[in-house]
This record gives sequence, structure tokens and C-alpha cells, in this order.
Amino acid sequence: MTGYPAPDHTNDPAARSWVASANDPGTDFPVQNLPLGIFSAGDAAPRAGMAIGDKVLDLVAALDLGLLGDAVPREALASDGLNGLFALGQEAGLRLRHAAFALLAAPEPSAHAGAILQDMAAVTMHRPVRVGNYTDFYAGIHHAVRAGGLLQPENPLPDNYKWVPIGYHGRASTTRVSGTDVRRPLGQRQLAPGGAPEFGPCRELDLELEMAIYVGRPTAWGQPVAIGRAAEHVAGYGLLNDWSARDIQRWEMKPLGPFLSKNLGTTLSPWVVSPQALAPFRVAMAPRDPADPQPLPYLMDNADQAGGTFDVALSVWLRTARMRAAGEGPVTIIHSNMRDLYWTPAQLLAHHTSSGCEMEAGDLIGTGTISGPREDELGSLLELAMNGARPVTLPNGETRSFLEDGDEITLKGRCVREGFVPIGFGTCTGTVLPAPDMAVSARELRGGPGFSTSLPPG
Amino acid sequence: MTGYPAPDHTNDPAARSWVASANDPGTDFPVQNLPLGIFSAGDAAPRAGMAIGDKVLDLVAALDLGLLGDAVPREALASDGLNGLFALGQEAGLRLRHAAFALLAAPEPSAHAGAILQDMAAVTMHRPVRVGNYTDFYAGIHHAVRAGGLLQPENPLPDNYKWVPIGYHGRASTTRVSGTDVRRPLGQRQLAPGGAPEFGPCRELDLELEMAIYVGRPTAWGQPVAIGRAAEHVAGYGLLNDWSARDIQRWEMKPLGPFLSKNLGTTLSPWVVSPQALAPFRVAMAPRDPADPQPLPYLMDNADQAGGTFDVALSVWLRTARMRAAGEGPVTIIHSNMRDLYWTPAQLLAHHTSSGCEMEAGDLIGTGTISGPREDELGSLLELAMNGARPVTLPNGETRSFLEDGDEITLKGRCVREGFVPIGFGTCTGTVLPAPDMAVSARELRGGPGFSTSLPPG
Repeated sequence: MTGYPAPDHTNDPAARSWVASANDPGTDFPVQNLPLGIFSAGDAAPRAGMAIGDKVLDLVAALDLGLLGDAVPREALASDGLNGLFALGQEAGLRLRHAAFALLAAPEPSAHAGAILQDMAAVTMHRPVRVGNYTDFYAGIHHAVRAGGLLQPENPLPDNYKWVPIGYHGRASTTRVSGTDVRRPLGQRQLAPGGAPEFGPCRELDLELEMAIYVGRPTAWGQPVAIGRAAEHVAGYGLLNDWSARDIQRWEMKPLGPFLSKNLGTTLSPWVVSPQALAPFRVAMAPRDPADPQPLPYLMDNADQAGGTFDVALSVWLRTARMRAAGEGPVTIIHSNMRDLYWTPAQLLAHHTSSGCEMEAGDLIGTGTISGPREDELGSLLELAMNGARPVTLPNGETRSFLEDGDEITLKGRCVREGFVPIGFGTCTGTVLPAPDMAVSARELRGGPGFSTSLPPG
Repeated sequence: MTGYPAPDHTNDPAARSWVASANDPGTDFPVQNLPLGIFSAGDAAPRAGMAIGDKVLDLVAALDLGLLGDAVPREALASDGLNGLFALGQEAGLRLRHAAFALLAAPEPSAHAGAILQDMAAVTMHRPVRVGNYTDFYAGIHHAVRAGGLLQPENPLPDNYKWVPIGYHGRASTTRVSGTDVRRPLGQRQLAPGGAPEFGPCRELDLELEMAIYVGRPTAWGQPVAIGRAAEHVAGYGLLNDWSARDIQRWEMKPLGPFLSKNLGTTLSPWVVSPQALAPFRVAMAPRDPADPQPLPYLMDNADQAGGTFDVALSVWLRTARMRAAGEGPVTIIHSNMRDLYWTPAQLLAHHTSSGCEMEAGDLIGTGTISGPREDELGSLLELAMNGARPVTLPNGETRSFLEDGDEITLKGRCVREGFVPIGFGTCTGTVLPAPDMAVSARELRGGPGFSTSLPPG
């Protein structure tokens, strides 16, 4: 294994599935993709499934019918998280992929099609993993420069940025699967520079466009992982929206970093795309500025630098409450691409374990917001609307500096390359709910009735 | 419930146990304490136990023998973590405490003593909880002033400090129980200001003296908890050593906070002391400087301010390899007290949930390093040795600015109040192992043999 496999027969553009919708040119889930997720149908317990066109392959049912051989143990699939499957390493994931590909790309439909396929529209998707640990990096250098300049103008790009893959720990308990509404938080924010803070509803709610990296085979405590082997510990990739309360963040983050401003919720796409599915879409890193330092030896591997990261075209879609009421669909507000990261997934993993930090199967790693070099490639509203100085005008005339209640945000990601069948990441969606009512909250927050507050109503 | 109960019959200083060692004046574990932990004996699976003198009460065995009535469900005790028990809330913890007290403070020994008691020296202790989420606060203001001045002299006490209970997320996967050795990490550190960083063994390894707060009854996502009810969500308290690599920390922490510098390991004492056991030792907060702002309403509760935090006398003990070889015992290098925190446990919980952050049963919250106002009340070597400017001289003539390989660090905590039986927290111990060998690591880090490094040998 290398962690970044070369294309194999499962990436063959000539392959077609007997699941007709998997052959639609626009589908995110052709037979070349086969991402993993956790779903439930009816009263059945959540379990592992695989996306194929507009269907979900029930992997437990398929295994029980003998259709997947002994690719992986049953208990790795009959679970409410992919953690156990991911712990088996990329080899096991590849065995499962090969078995499912043989089943779904067979010339004739399976005789058991009715027993093993569910309509995607009819199932409930769950978080793909039980998130034990969540790390969020800051590997999007274009975001770091722009957002840094807006949040900390005195030092937009920190001195350490080009040496250290900067990261911090996120909150595992508030990660949620796509489709979960997210409530605008209350919090402390300083309304005027130098003034006393107030407690109230966030006024600068933002999204952050990120990729998720899921840890597969765990690493041992106290044991750094070599850069040349780090990518072997990646089970797959997804989309991640790191909702951010900018006003709360600005006030709370010095000196120990973001905390409550990122705790309100982190939305994950339900499907985890494997390294093998992404094999055709690997792309070399953008050339470094000659003035930039070379990565230190523990982060430097020629093959990794040349191999780079992935060409994933990312987009953010907004649908406001007014658009929804008018029956209008979402509009794209942001385009970006995973290729613009400053560090490769292997570098992020190698750095993370360099201190001996133990990585557990199913651990979630966010790349950090991915912006591109161009003005229309900005991964957050903070950057896009320049911290309120340049509000975005939507086709229906509405404007946005930050998110309003009722706004629905959807992230998408798609890989396209000549000579291969395009694959996608599905959607990562969430709608903003109003903050808790301040009058009620004030009473609740005080633990009793009758408390009056001078804070503005929510 | 108030979260901070008043003393009841289980705090009665006249109570004695038929477990003779529980009546020793010096024990941490009289019948008035009864802390919870997870232990295993022989080949038996880990399970919940209670410390009593130099014994461990096997709570599963006692329940199975009908000695604890139906205080709590069996599955809450027959587990490798106290999470399930903590989830039942303080009421369940109190029922269990009352039942165990009735058993252990009875006039006559239990006929089943042999079946329900294990020698503490013979059992293996485990992490008290499966740590789902770990938050580390910065609530020790004397530490913030002193360490801040040394790490960030331009702004020792951040502008937000007296408004916001500053905290950040720690790494759950590397929390370990007392007695686990901790390996000195490798990492990036800048050897000269403005110079390029190097990768190598940490040169400034430190300890941090903290208290641990364990979450009991969970809180709902999106739902702030009132300050007057926040302490109800605390299951208990322990000791925590937040090992810190200062040189790595200084270089990596801007702008998103400490990351790998705190990932090397976090040591937890095995026993969790309940709010009821601590009832006699609650103490009002130190008076605020009149110039300090009042806490914002969501953090302000007159009863909480008056009730305050706990009087826990804390100490740090050091035993070097040379002392161990000479057969010498550890020496105290630090004294401090939990009463010197700037925020109460209820304020920490209320702030944590104010954004709607979901707290799960068994979540771990560190208070932050607890230093006192006096020169000999400093909770880390960074402060004690003034970042190397004032090395500590030990009785045997050795000096320390930071920790050396082989140093064993032990935290202790004890509550003493006239009219009550003293209780303690047991010990929280770890010994520093050498960093991974750089020559081997360099090869391993590069993923192959033959790589030569210009870095200094470990």
C-alpha cells in the first residue's frame, strides 16, 4: 500500500452497473465511486451501506447473502459507525470495494437486487463514524491570508504558517450528518473595539468549506508515522462545513484558539469516498513560492510532493428562506478546489503523529477552509463579503454579509478528469435555525423566572 | 439537587468503617470519601470500584450479592468506564454512595468482605471514563498572569480574560490513567528568535497541575444550561497533569492555540471524588479586584459566587532518576489550591454550554493550571523556574528548569477542614521516557533506511 493507490479496474471508465441510475452522466455515485456510509431503513438498526446511483447497497444484507465473499467481518458492517471497518486498514476497504464492484458491475442484475438495494431517497443517513477525536487544520493558505487579514490584521499569515501545518482540536460531540439543522448560538461578542462584551445571539454566522479526512488504521501512542507511510492511515474523504460564529471567535480566541465559536455544530457529508475511488484525480501540489521554506525532513517526501493532493472541485450553494418560499432553487456563491491546500493529507497525518499523538480509527480531520487564489474562490462568507464591507448580492436581490436565519447551505464536491468517469461527494447540507429566544433563555440561563435582561432581543 | 450538596450523614466525622485502614488519619479514602474508579483484578474485566482505605470495593460483586439494593442498574457498573453511571446524574451517584456508606460504615464487617474487597495494591486501575470530549480551561488566573508573561510577554493577561472563561479543546485519545509513563515528544521548535525551526526532541517539557471535572448528566445540543443549574451536570472531580512541551507550544500556538505540545499525554488520577464527598470543603471565591468586571448575567449567580469552589490543597512531587537510584523518595516542589481559580465549576459548565455545545456523560474538563498568588504556589515548572531563569535546586543538589528523562511527577490533592474527616484524591503519577531515538526515528519518519539527518541526536 502507499496510501495513494494507482487506478485499478474499479476506476475503468468502461465499467457500467446494472443499477441504471449509476450510469447517468450527472450522478455522483457511478460504479467507479462506491463510497461508504451509515444508513437505516425503516425500523432496522443503522448499518454500513454503499452509494450506487440513486440507491444504497445494504452491505450487511449483501454479505449475509454471500454476495461479498469474506471481504470483511460482518461486525465491521453491522455497526452504527464505520470505525471498525476503517480500523482494518486500506487493504480491507479495498477488498470490500473489489467485492462490491464485482457485484454491481456484473453484466446481469443480481437476483437479490430487491433485498440488497434501498432507495437513497427513502433511507436515513447517519454520521459515517462515531467521532472520537476531531482535529481541524488550517491548510488552506489562501484562506489563511484572507481570513487572517480580516480577523487579525496585524499578522494575517502567522510566522510559523509555512513551517507548521497549523491545527487545533475541534469538538467531537457536536459533529452532525448532513441534513441536520444548526442553531445560531448565543455567546459573548464585543460590539465595539475596546468596549465591554455583551452576551447575545451571534451576529456574524459563517460557513467554512472544508474537506474531511477520516483516519483508518490507527497509530500507536508515542510513535511518529513516517511521511512516506502516513497516507496509509487515511480511510477516506468527505465534505465538512465548519460553521463559525465570527464575532464570538474574534473575542474568545486569544490566546488559546477558537472554542465556542466553532462548537455550535460541524456538518459532515454522509458518504466517505475511498482513496481508490480518488486515484485518478490526484494532482501535484501548486508550485511553492521559491522564497518559501522547504518542508522539514519529517514532512518532506519527494513522491508525496509530486503526488500532491486531489483535484476536487468544490462549491457552496445558498438557498434563503425567501428563495424557498418562492420555490426557487439554491444558487452557487462559492467555487474552490482541494488542490489549493498548502499541505498534503500525508503531511497533515505525519505532522499530527510527530508528537506521538495516537490516531484512532474513525478520527475526523478537517483540512481547514479551502479558498483559492482568485476572487471568486473564497471558502467562507467572511472572505467573500470582506467581513461585511462587500455584501454579496443574490439573484433575487437579497444581500448577505453573514448567514441569516433560514439560510440553507449546501457543499458539493466533484472530481472530473478526461478519460475517467466523474465522481462526486454527494451533498453536505444544513439550515440555520434562529438563536434560542433571549427572554426565555435569560430566565433559563439564570435558573428561574422573572429575570429581566438589558440585552437586545434575539 | 443543587450540584453542590450540603453535608449529609455520609460526611459525619464520627462515622468509621470496619475496613480498618479507612480509619487511618492519613488515608485519602476514609468512609466519608468513597470515590469511584475503574479497576480490574486478575483476568476479570474492568469494572467500577470504590476506594475505601487501602482496599477497593468491587461494586459489581457487591450489587450481585444484594448489598447495594437497587441503587443503580448493574450495567452502569459492569463497564470499562464510568460514563454510563455518570449519565444517570447526581441522584444516582448519591444513591450508590448512600448504599455503599451503609455497607462500609456498618457496625459489623460484611459477611462477604472477602468477596467484595480487593487490595488496592493488587489491582490495576484504568482511566475512570472513556473520554469522549476533553476541554481544557485556563481558569487559574495566577497561572495566566505568570505563564502568559513568560510565553507572550507583550500581552500576559489577555483583554478577554476577566470576561470569558477561556478554554480550548484537548486531545481525548492521549488521556491516560496515573502510572502510565509519558514519552518526551519530538516536534518543531524555534531555537533562536526569528530563526528557522528545527525538528527534534522537546527541550522544555513541563507539567501542569490541574483539577479534572467530569460531566455527569448530559446536556442537549443547542440548549444553554443555566448557571444556577450547571453544577448539577458535574459527576465528580479528580487530578490532571497536562504535560506540556513549552518550546513546541511557543512555536505552534499562534493563531489557533496549543496542539501537538499538549498531545503527548494527559494523566488522570484514577479516582473520581463526588460532589457529596466534597460538600464540607466548599469555599467562597477569593474577592475580585473591585476594578474587575462583574460576570455577565449568564455567568452570574449570587449563590454560586458565594458558594465558590473547593478548598483542595494541591501538591506536586518530583523524584528524579538519581533519587530513585539512591533509594530516595520524592520531594515536593509545588503547593497550590483549587480555591484560587477565577471561575467556579458552575461558571465553566454554564459557559461551555452557552453556545449550545452538547456535553456528554464522562466528558473531561480540565480547570487549567492552578497557581496561587504566592511565589511558592506555582502550578508549572515554567512559572517556578521562570522559563529557565531561576532553576529549581533539589535537596540532592540537582537542578531543574524543565523535566529531564526519568523524572517522576506525582500530583496530590487533599481537603482538610476543622470538624470533618480529611479526604484526598489519591495520586496522579507519570514518569518521563526519553524521546524516540532520532536516528531511528529519522529513518522511520522518512519511511525507509539510510536517511541522514543534521538534527542533534536525541
